[in-house]
Amino acid sequence: MNAIGLKPVPGIRMQRVGLGSYSDGDHIICVMKKGFLRIKAMEGSHLRVNVNGKGETVGPNGSCLDLKLANEVQGKNGNPSSLSTVGNSTNVKWHECSVGKSERQSLINQKGCVVWITGLSGSGKSTVACALSQILCQRGKLSYILDGDNVRHGLNRDLSFKAEDRAENIRRVGEVAKLFADAGVICIACLISPYERDREACRAMLPKGDFIEVFMDVPLEICEARDPKGLYKLARDGKIKGFTGIDDPYERPQDSEIVLTCKVGDCASPYEMAEKVIRYLEAKGYLEA
Amino acid sequence: MNAIGLKPVPGIRMQRVGLGSYSDGDHIICVMKKGFLRIKAMEGSHLRVNVNGKGETVGPNGSCLDLKLANEVQGKNGNPSSLSTVGNSTNVKWHECSVGKSERQSLINQKGCVVWITGLSGSGKSTVACALSQILCQRGKLSYILDGDNVRHGLNRDLSFKAEDRAENIRRVGEVAKLFADAGVICIACLISPYERDREACRAMLPKGDFIEVFMDVPLEICEARDPKGLYKLARDGKIKGFTGIDDPYERPQDSEIVLTCKVGDCASPYEMAEKVIRYLEAKGYLEA
Repeated sequence: MNAIGLKPVPGIRMQRVGLGSYSDGDHIICVMKKGFLRIKAMEGSHLRVNVNGKGETVGPNGSCLDLKLANEVQGKNGNPSSLSTVGNSTNVKWHECSVGKSERQSLINQKGCVVWITGLSGSGKSTVACALSQILCQRGKLSYILDGDNVRHGLNRDLSFKAEDRAENIRRVGEVAKLFADAGVICIACLISPYERDREACRAMLPKGDFIEVFMDVPLEICEARDPKGLYKLARDGKIKGFTGIDDPYERPQDSEIVLTCKVGDCASPYEMAEKVIRYLEAKGYLEA
Repeated sequence: MNAIGLKPVPGIRMQRVGLGSYSDGDHIICVMKKGFLRIKAMEGSHLRVNVNGKGETVGPNGSCLDLKLANEVQGKNGNPSSLSTVGNSTNVKWHECSVGKSERQSLINQKGCVVWITGLSGSGKSTVACALSQILCQRGKLSYILDGDNVRHGLNRDLSFKAEDRAENIRRVGEVAKLFADAGVICIACLISPYERDREACRAMLPKGDFIEVFMDVPLEICEARDPKGLYKLARDGKIKGFTGIDDPYERPQDSEIVLTCKVGDCASPYEMAEKVIRYLEAKGYLEA
């Protein structure tokens, strides 16, 4: 068996003529992608090929036959398809060799998922995200932070803060987070995401268990006292309309995987909070492939 | 120096009381994020603190002082900020410890970039992308394929095929590809992307050199003969309007980093093509951190 999954039958001379290209002297067989092979006829050859029980002719010189193997969807543990050429008896067996989520996860020894941090402005979402990414990095795990504010400078720069655009902002971050999780990355998304329906729509995009909601349960008075961006003051002064917690509701999550609580005079450090998330990820097996 | 970059001054007892939390017995110092420290007063203590030359009082019991260090934007090679408490002389120095692109790249020993594969429908973009991801995986490198079709099922499902939506489709894929490259991943984007201006807009989003354009230079007659999705037939029959190559132009890239040429009777295998991309990535240093 060679690296890309073609298994020549003993007694038949199959030579590697390039990466993914094999030849029996008359034909070149190329691995195209999962379940596809291409047979290219070499000089002066015509060949009759049986593919999954059906006869096909390959030739003349230079022409190609693309073959879709019958059981290409059976995956790693399915019976490999077989391709046999009548006459020359070139037999090759196909083994799945495409790169999917599980291969990517094995490569970096972790499982892709989305850690969705929701909470009021000033509740510490970004700070916990940063601490979390630091601990993960120290443990050799690859994470990436999608921040509501940052994404608005790029992907979502066409969106305003009106209601439907805020929903679209969250939808797009959810879709991108899903792609990162599929890539095998631990994606940390930080958005106020005040409405249950928007959060649940993002949860529904992902395989069960892979959306891990972290609720920053911090009283408004603490967030407002911190006011890291000065937005609460502007909202109180009426200079910002529809500000979550002031004149727009924040729907508290009822069933978050993780709740990080902060009370007046009793607030854990961001690292202590991040450690709680780490313990969850570890217990659920996300820190290994 | 501890793992997160706090350096206690010799002679001062600083104990680690949690991940990212340190104490001198009277105060807890927490690392909040890049450039921010929080000092939390412990029982019965009031403290006068000098921060970047300005006096601040921390106390009473349980209260916090958040400190933004003056030179937090100086980065790794800047002089670290210093924080000294008068009386107790608790001195800590701050070193940048946030997880950025370079830390992620070091973690997985590669450099994030975007391999942008452009070409006609049927030119083999997805097949080469798949071959490329397989070779990268075999070499222990993490890649992720953003496919025009796939993204249309998720992130871009609100977009039609009219002109402005096609441009927006490409813009969003470019923005997401940029995020993946920032995460340290080798992002392989496959889109027909027929217009120079759209491709150049995506190139402009990325640091110089990190957008690697791969032009599938395959004659229309080959693509149309392959017609893997049956779209050319529909376009010729007038059932699809504005189809690239038939009744909508494909603007050939003039200055692609890599050109993969396929002629009638002389077409390299997808693996041979992918190997050419690999050689480029290797030569430019993207396959190591």
